[in-house]
Amino acid sequence: MLNTITLTGGTHGNETSGIQLIRDWLKFGLPSRFSALNVDCSLANTAAIAANVRFLDEDLNRQFTTERLAGDNPAREAVLAKELNQKFGPKGNTRTDFFIDIHNTTSNMGATLIVLENDDFNVKLARFVKQAMPEANILVEDEKAFADHGYLCTVGKKGVMIEVGAQPQGVLREDVYQLTLTMAEAILDFCVAWNNQDAALNELPPCEAFRLGYELKFPLDEDGMRKAMIHHSIQDQDFIPLLPGAPMFRGFDGSDYVWDGEKETYPHFVNEAAYHKLDVAFSTSDRIEF
Amino acid sequence: MLNTITLTGGTHGNETSGIQLIRDWLKFGLPSRFSALNVDCSLANTAAIAANVRFLDEDLNRQFTTERLAGDNPAREAVLAKELNQKFGPKGNTRTDFFIDIHNTTSNMGATLIVLENDDFNVKLARFVKQAMPEANILVEDEKAFADHGYLCTVGKKGVMIEVGAQPQGVLREDVYQLTLTMAEAILDFCVAWNNQDAALNELPPCEAFRLGYELKFPLDEDGMRKAMIHHSIQDQDFIPLLPGAPMFRGFDGSDYVWDGEKETYPHFVNEAAYHKLDVAFSTSDRIEF
Repeated sequence: MLNTITLTGGTHGNETSGIQLIRDWLKFGLPSRFSALNVDCSLANTAAIAANVRFLDEDLNRQFTTERLAGDNPAREAVLAKELNQKFGPKGNTRTDFFIDIHNTTSNMGATLIVLENDDFNVKLARFVKQAMPEANILVEDEKAFADHGYLCTVGKKGVMIEVGAQPQGVLREDVYQLTLTMAEAILDFCVAWNNQDAALNELPPCEAFRLGYELKFPLDEDGMRKAMIHHSIQDQDFIPLLPGAPMFRGFDGSDYVWDGEKETYPHFVNEAAYHKLDVAFSTSDRIEF
Repeated sequence: MLNTITLTGGTHGNETSGIQLIRDWLKFGLPSRFSALNVDCSLANTAAIAANVRFLDEDLNRQFTTERLAGDNPAREAVLAKELNQKFGPKGNTRTDFFIDIHNTTSNMGATLIVLENDDFNVKLARFVKQAMPEANILVEDEKAFADHGYLCTVGKKGVMIEVGAQPQGVLREDVYQLTLTMAEAILDFCVAWNNQDAALNELPPCEAFRLGYELKFPLDEDGMRKAMIHHSIQDQDFIPLLPGAPMFRGFDGSDYVWDGEKETYPHFVNEAAYHKLDVAFSTSDRIEF
């Protein structure tokens, strides 16, 4: 039974679609069909929102490991993380049954549901969302235990992220807003069905999903400068298979760099602005049945 | 005769395509057909580039009015502006015959050449670029005298800007890079023809251009919060006519806001991220023959 649901936007202060959806639901209320749910809507990092930046000192969405929450890092987001953990958690012994955190990306990932566990709840949620919204992508990051992630949503007993793109930082696009709204509503529809122990949840067919591989970096020269950019053939092609031998980078000297994996991969977070300083070009994934 | 040409990128530190083109031409050299030209390539705001932000304190590309250059503003970009003015100018009595400054935008403006004067040089340049690159847009900002603008490129005797999009801040897209390269080469091809007093420049047909109108703001409530977003029907539709009565904003309450001009306008800088804090939704323009 999901007695307490937390829905947040603005964990990154320049990701506008979640921020706007939270503002709208706070102002106009949630759709009436969710009246039986106890949903707490809030903005996570109001200082970063006011500054229209991802974060002021450090990435808030990496602060929620047990170690960091127990540490004494003076960064503003580390301090804020402790406050949010007290308000919505505390992690491991939490008042929040289900935590939904809304993000957007400059990558063309469409509406992507990121789940962190391969269990009955998350499998049914993913299948339900995929059935309600066939255009959705399901991304599975279960390479480590749920509680070992530093994500805000892990403060809940269960937690997921909504990740929608392509949208530049600081820009609100209506198409991205509408995809965000549709996925948030689909997740809350699932919550209603879960709480009602709806038998139809047991009949949902397996769905396509993508299991996170690793982050692939841009090629750098000896001075740490990039030697290449994302190849036009994979730009905006998130979750489209990249085949062995196909180009993934275009070098500034005109040469191409090809994917040399043994089998195809499914790139996502392709050319995400927030990973600029890390020189991450995209993340790999495998296509699975979930 | 254009004896000295300055080409800059990184006037805004998170506009990557100009930054990369400058780096590449510094590293690999310009195409050999420009060997007769004296082109100085440089990055304007290296501190902002290192921080991957538009600017540190103030917009560098608004600092180059005579008043500001004579002032004592301690903002880092105001100090930098004086240095650049000494290096490439000084404005009004300048060593730079032609100044080309490269930008990019989150708006879907394609490759846009921004000219600031309606004179023989700029008209021929625009017609030449449009002929070489029919997909280019010509934007004319001649609402005030050339020297009254605060743009970096007005440090030259002649100055223009290259503005290419759509590209998120901090992201380098190959398509935007290639459009930037193509337009930079077209402008330099014009410089060669101009210096050669190529008679063909007198035979160029008039071209389509857009004359800047004004900046249109998002509707705000009494608390200064936006009441609406760019309507999906004009998102990515820069320089496409917006007709009287057609929707331009979608309200968060579901209502539409329509264009109530007496005639069509040609929106551009639609949903530009950098104008977020100014609440500018787009700029209007009229279609003209140039």
